[in-house]
Amino acid sequence: MRMYDIIAKKRDGGTLTREELAFAVNGYVAGTVPDYQMSALLMAIYLRGMADAETAALTEVMARSGEMVDLSAIAGIKVDKHSTGGVGDKTTLVIAPVVAACGVKIAKMSGRGLGHTGGTIDKMEAVPGTRTSLTQEEFFRQVNEIGIAVIGQSGQIAVADKKMYALRDVTATVGCIPLIASSIMSKKLAAGSDAILLDVTMGDGAFMKTLDDAIELARQMVAIGTAHGRKVAALITDMDKPLGRSIGNALEVAESMAVLQGKGPADLTEVCLQLAANMLMLAGKGDEAACRAMAQRVLADGSAFAKCRQMFAAQGGDVACLDDPGRFRKAKYSHDVTAAQAGYIVKNDVEKIGNASVLLGAGRLTKEDAIDFAAGIIMHKKLGDAVRPGDAICTLYADDPALFPAAEEMYRGGLVIGAEQPALPPLVYARVTPGGVERF
Amino acid sequence: MRMYDIIAKKRDGGTLTREELAFAVNGYVAGTVPDYQMSALLMAIYLRGMADAETAALTEVMARSGEMVDLSAIAGIKVDKHSTGGVGDKTTLVIAPVVAACGVKIAKMSGRGLGHTGGTIDKMEAVPGTRTSLTQEEFFRQVNEIGIAVIGQSGQIAVADKKMYALRDVTATVGCIPLIASSIMSKKLAAGSDAILLDVTMGDGAFMKTLDDAIELARQMVAIGTAHGRKVAALITDMDKPLGRSIGNALEVAESMAVLQGKGPADLTEVCLQLAANMLMLAGKGDEAACRAMAQRVLADGSAFAKCRQMFAAQGGDVACLDDPGRFRKAKYSHDVTAAQAGYIVKNDVEKIGNASVLLGAGRLTKEDAIDFAAGIIMHKKLGDAVRPGDAICTLYADDPALFPAAEEMYRGGLVIGAEQPALPPLVYARVTPGGVERF
Repeated sequence: MRMYDIIAKKRDGGTLTREELAFAVNGYVAGTVPDYQMSALLMAIYLRGMADAETAALTEVMARSGEMVDLSAIAGIKVDKHSTGGVGDKTTLVIAPVVAACGVKIAKMSGRGLGHTGGTIDKMEAVPGTRTSLTQEEFFRQVNEIGIAVIGQSGQIAVADKKMYALRDVTATVGCIPLIASSIMSKKLAAGSDAILLDVTMGDGAFMKTLDDAIELARQMVAIGTAHGRKVAALITDMDKPLGRSIGNALEVAESMAVLQGKGPADLTEVCLQLAANMLMLAGKGDEAACRAMAQRVLADGSAFAKCRQMFAAQGGDVACLDDPGRFRKAKYSHDVTAAQAGYIVKNDVEKIGNASVLLGAGRLTKEDAIDFAAGIIMHKKLGDAVRPGDAICTLYADDPALFPAAEEMYRGGLVIGAEQPALPPLVYARVTPGGVERF
Repeated sequence: MRMYDIIAKKRDGGTLTREELAFAVNGYVAGTVPDYQMSALLMAIYLRGMADAETAALTEVMARSGEMVDLSAIAGIKVDKHSTGGVGDKTTLVIAPVVAACGVKIAKMSGRGLGHTGGTIDKMEAVPGTRTSLTQEEFFRQVNEIGIAVIGQSGQIAVADKKMYALRDVTATVGCIPLIASSIMSKKLAAGSDAILLDVTMGDGAFMKTLDDAIELARQMVAIGTAHGRKVAALITDMDKPLGRSIGNALEVAESMAVLQGKGPADLTEVCLQLAANMLMLAGKGDEAACRAMAQRVLADGSAFAKCRQMFAAQGGDVACLDDPGRFRKAKYSHDVTAAQAGYIVKNDVEKIGNASVLLGAGRLTKEDAIDFAAGIIMHKKLGDAVRPGDAICTLYADDPALFPAAEEMYRGGLVIGAEQPALPPLVYARVTPGGVERF
């Protein structure tokens, strides 16, 4: 078998076999397939696409390129969740404790933020003392004992994906649905959970800009997981505005705790309830109404918040910050972005909001950048809200006031105030299961 | 400017500017654009194509990446010729002297053979003593004094093409018409002649398998040359059978001398007359009939052969071999491939004939391979000829008889003898000029 022939076959629109995909991917990991051949293949895949069976085979090969976590030492059904990324997307901090409080095991690996989107692991580390790197023994014991652990993704998971993603990132082959689907699902298959809920974000702050693309990505990921014996469903959620009002690590933890205590923003609370209910359904806990009621109950009776405290405590975090977010270290400076005119917020570009938070120090431009946990943005006026001249639209937080002008300019660059109140997008557009697509 | 954005633009079907192409190509030569980005761009070009203006700009950037030969020190119009490659294609050895004998300057760089196709420089070196590497001063002086010099292509010509071709060769991006056209024309533009005749071979022994593809390649190359102020035309010639009967370096020189002495095979003689006449037309020597008559005259009166002797003598070659090809060193062994049945040769795969000659030692599989100038094949029966059982279809020549079985098997693998005499393809299918396409 020769890499040349594999490239030529895909270039001509052929369907690669599992053996051919394994030759390419394993050779790339081993260094016998050079990066210039892999990048040619990736561009051919980008432009020629892949059949579902091909994507499933590629995913399996990528998953098997690293450690395959065996969660069988943990009793019961383990449910995982993945979001394709958003701004102010702190749902994992809410729904993992909700689901665990309902008796379903969460043995989850999460990622870090990069570019305009944040990551759960960074948010957890905003809680002083929290360890996000556990040994496998510690990880299993914690899940067995308290039903939940969320840790950083091991470097040994899906090593081919890591190497291929780095190459895609510099060869303009990231935005390709089969490659996105196989990248995400290779990590999810390797991470070992029995059921996986996918939160496919859609809108100008997300990878998928249109509902059709988001549904297609969801469909492909559900098909891959199902082909490999996992229970998988996906919700298509809105990312035309951030979830909640807070962007930035400690700020988002505080907002998540508010949701867990029944006093969070309505949009974030509602999305978390729907995601949690769908995870419970995948775990066989009942129909949608029953699962939603169960999630509402553990929010209302404080058991979800208690589960969250228990998790942070087990991982060394200072739970006093969860009880009283006023204890988080605060940014030294704040700055209000105010409205110059009256009207309604008719556009508030989510990617620009995310980029503004990165400029304040809340995120990373490269993997090596350090994060300022206290930095970020609190939005006072969101898409559709009325504003009067002088109203604070948002407050920026940073340790260096010199960062405010660029961040404000970035934020304002995506902000449009108009005369007409715009129609708001739904929070959840659709659900994709092996049975098909339900649009809401 | 970022290479990433250039790749993404072409990936999405955009048209690259001259500046973008220069950034990519010059960066690749300088090493600031890594090979994995260039291979992604090449695959995107392969699958998205290029507009004519884009191909012309790419060609210019590639030409300017190396030395631009300035032939202005040579008086008069200089005419170049390029063949896209064939088996037994020795036309340069005939038509360069014919055109020079008609008073048009030939200051030509030629290539070596690789794979199943041969190269003029190897054939010239089959004549003992011939120097194919001259200093620029020697080269100019020879052309000024005797009107003709044919030398190996300088390593300083179109250096970007050399590096890009090596990458295309391993990333399945060779067979793309705009990339083939820009590769060939970058070298022709850099080589400095005023007029260029392109011999675009077509058929199973050639890059272009169909007339439409051959015409499109010719059209693009003519457009590139014209855009850069050169006089360019192309003939589409047949490569469904080798030209003449000889394949292999010394064998082909002998056959070329026979043509120059008016006793060569009819097909080879006719194609050479048409190519030479078209070169003379590009040089402004008259209309087609007048130019053809001129070419026939220098063949008939011996002046073309004399010009060839003069060129080899000037470059140190042993002209006694040209006068009497019996003086060439002969292969130690020969072996006849015979017909097992009666009928007509209805197929005789040209690529397999070329590969058989490589197996005998007449060609190279890699650039580092040495060539046996005496090795090769003489075809006694060609496409359309009648054969009886036991007839020698061809004779193989090699210094090692152990090479015959594999070469015979290769040759026979492309040979079909049938009951019906097949229709023969024309020698020349079409002419492409800036004015359009004439099909013959």
